[in-house]
Amino acid sequence: MNTRKVSIKDIAKICGVSVSTVSRVINNNGRFSEETRQRVVKAIKKYNYKTNTAAKTLRMQKSNAIGILVPDLANSFFSNLVENLEKNFFIKGYSTMICDTGRDKDRELTYLKMLEAKVVDGLIVISGSRKYNPDIIDPKIPVICIDRSSDSPNVTYIGSNHEQGARMATAKLIEAGTTPILLCSSNQKISSTKDRIRGYQIEMKSQHLSDNDCKIVAIKSHKSNIDQRGIEIRSILRNMLNEQNLPIGIFAISDTIAAEVTVAAHELELNIPRDLKVIGFDDAPIAKYCYPQLTTIRQNTQEIVDKTSTLLLQMIQGDNSIRQNREIIDVDLIERGTV
Amino acid sequence: MNTRKVSIKDIAKICGVSVSTVSRVINNNGRFSEETRQRVVKAIKKYNYKTNTAAKTLRMQKSNAIGILVPDLANSFFSNLVENLEKNFFIKGYSTMICDTGRDKDRELTYLKMLEAKVVDGLIVISGSRKYNPDIIDPKIPVICIDRSSDSPNVTYIGSNHEQGARMATAKLIEAGTTPILLCSSNQKISSTKDRIRGYQIEMKSQHLSDNDCKIVAIKSHKSNIDQRGIEIRSILRNMLNEQNLPIGIFAISDTIAAEVTVAAHELELNIPRDLKVIGFDDAPIAKYCYPQLTTIRQNTQEIVDKTSTLLLQMIQGDNSIRQNREIIDVDLIERGTV
Repeated sequence: MNTRKVSIKDIAKICGVSVSTVSRVINNNGRFSEETRQRVVKAIKKYNYKTNTAAKTLRMQKSNAIGILVPDLANSFFSNLVENLEKNFFIKGYSTMICDTGRDKDRELTYLKMLEAKVVDGLIVISGSRKYNPDIIDPKIPVICIDRSSDSPNVTYIGSNHEQGARMATAKLIEAGTTPILLCSSNQKISSTKDRIRGYQIEMKSQHLSDNDCKIVAIKSHKSNIDQRGIEIRSILRNMLNEQNLPIGIFAISDTIAAEVTVAAHELELNIPRDLKVIGFDDAPIAKYCYPQLTTIRQNTQEIVDKTSTLLLQMIQGDNSIRQNREIIDVDLIERGTV
Repeated sequence: MNTRKVSIKDIAKICGVSVSTVSRVINNNGRFSEETRQRVVKAIKKYNYKTNTAAKTLRMQKSNAIGILVPDLANSFFSNLVENLEKNFFIKGYSTMICDTGRDKDRELTYLKMLEAKVVDGLIVISGSRKYNPDIIDPKIPVICIDRSSDSPNVTYIGSNHEQGARMATAKLIEAGTTPILLCSSNQKISSTKDRIRGYQIEMKSQHLSDNDCKIVAIKSHKSNIDQRGIEIRSILRNMLNEQNLPIGIFAISDTIAAEVTVAAHELELNIPRDLKVIGFDDAPIAKYCYPQLTTIRQNTQEIVDKTSTLLLQMIQGDNSIRQNREIIDVDLIERGTV
C-alpha cells in the first residue's frame, strides 16, 4: 500500500467502517462515534491519505472567522489597526471578532478560550505586557502576534522597528537643542515600550550625553481617567520647569501621551514648539487633531495590516513553512508642528 | 394531567421515549434525533412542564457571550462606549464579541448571522443608517439597539435625547451672537443625526430666525480619509468667510467633525473662539485633546452603558416584560473653550 496512492476505500477497509463513514468523519458532518473518528483520523495520518484536502479539512472546521485580541480600543492607533484588519479580512471572505482585553490577564485568557470554542480559523494577538503563551489554545490555530513576543516557535511576530523609531525621535530632539530629554512612558512592561526605551537610551549614549540628560518617567494614572492623567502630566511639566531652562524636550511613548502633553502645556501657557518640544509615537489618527499637530514616529499601519492578513491566510490554508516568521517593519519620522 | 404538576416522567410517557432522552433534549447534551427533539419540545410546551428551568434551558444554549455591532471604531465616542460595555459585561461573567460593520449593509448582515451562529446570549446594535430589522436573526435572542430605531416591538431602544442636545447647542451659538449658524453633518441617514438636525431646526425657528440663517452642509469625504476631509472642511470655512462677517458659528454633528473644524481653523489662522465658535456633540475622548478643548453636548456614556447591560441581562434571564422599552437619556452642555 506504500507504492500506490491510498484511496478512501483503503482507509475504510483499514478502519473496518464504510466509505460513507470515512467521508462523514472527513467532512465532520453527520453521526459517528468519537472512537470511530479517532480511528479514521489515525489511519488517514498513517497512510498519508490525500493530505492536501482531507487532512486539511479534518484539521480545520473552517468557520471563516478570525479572532483579534486588542489591548485597548480607546487608543486610536489600535482602533485604527483593528478597523483596517477587519476591512482586509472581510474582502477575503473572513469575518473578524474583536475582543478588548484591557491588558488584563484574566480577560485575555477568557477571550482566548472563548475564541477557540467559537472556532476561529486564525488568531491575531496585539500587544500586551507579558509574552504570549501559545499553550493556552489548540496549536493548530495559526496565531500572529503584533508587537507581542512569544517563546514559541509556532507564533509569527510582526511589529514595527520600535528601537529605530525611538532613536530617530531622540536624535531629532537632540538636534533641536533640547537636553535633557524626558521620556514619558506608561506601562513599561509592554514589549514595544521596552524597545522604545532602549532605543532612546542607545541614541542618548551614542551622542555622548550623560546619564543626567536621560530622564524616564512613567505615568501612573489609568488611561481611562483622562482628568487624573492631565493632573499628573501638568505636575511633571512643572517639575521640569523648576529644574531646567526652556525649551523642554519630551519624547512621549505614544501619541496619546503626546496629546496629553500638548493639553497640559496649553494649560501652563507654554508655547509649543518654542517653550516645549514633543515627539509622539504611532502617527495615530489623534496626532492630526492636536495643536500643533504632532511630530511623531509613524508606524506603517497599512503594511502591518497587509503583512498580517497575507501571512495569516497562508497559514490558514495550511502553509506551515511561514510560521516562526519575524517581520520587522520600518518606521518614519513625520515632521509636523511640535518640534 | 391538567390538575397536577407535570413531571419529566409524564413528558417521557407522552413522547414514547425514556426519561434520560427527555433530559438529554432539555440539556441539549448527548445524542437524539431532530424528530425526537421536536416531539419533546412540543410536549414540554403543551403541558407547560417546569417552564422556569427546562423551557428556558431549551430556549437558550447559554454561551455567556454578548455580540456588539459597532459602526465605526475610529470614532472615539463609539470605541469608548464599546470598551465600557465590555467592562460591565465582563464583571457580570459575560464575554463580548465586537464586530465593526463600517456602516456597511453586507458586513452588518454577515456579522449578525455569524454572531447568531456562534450562539450569543444577547446582542447590542449600535447606530446605523437604516432601521434595524430583527427578522434577520432568531427572535429568541434579546436585542438592544443604541441609537438605532426598529419597527419591531421586540427590540429595546436606548439612546440620548439628541434633539434636546441639538437645541442646547444651537441656543448656545445664538446666544454667543453667531448667526447664521452652519450645521456641519456627515451621513444624514443615521437616526441620531436626523434627530440632531431636527433639534437645530426647531431651535432656530423657536428663536424666530429665518431660513437664511439655517445652513446645513454634509461632509462627503469618507472619515477614513482624514486629509480629504480636512480639504473639504477648509473649503467650507473659506466659503463662509466670503459670505458673512466674523465670528462664524458652527454646530458640528459629532466631536470628530468639530475636531476637524478646529484643525481647519488653525490652518486658516482663524482664532477660536474669537473668529469662529464651534460646538461638537458626544463629549468623546477626542474633545479634550482639541485646542481649545471642545464645547460640546455630552452623551452620558456611563448611563447608556449601565442601562444597556442591566436591561440586556434581565432579558437574557428570561424577563420579557421589559422588551419594547424605549429609554431616552438626557444630555448636558459642556462649556469648554470653543464658544
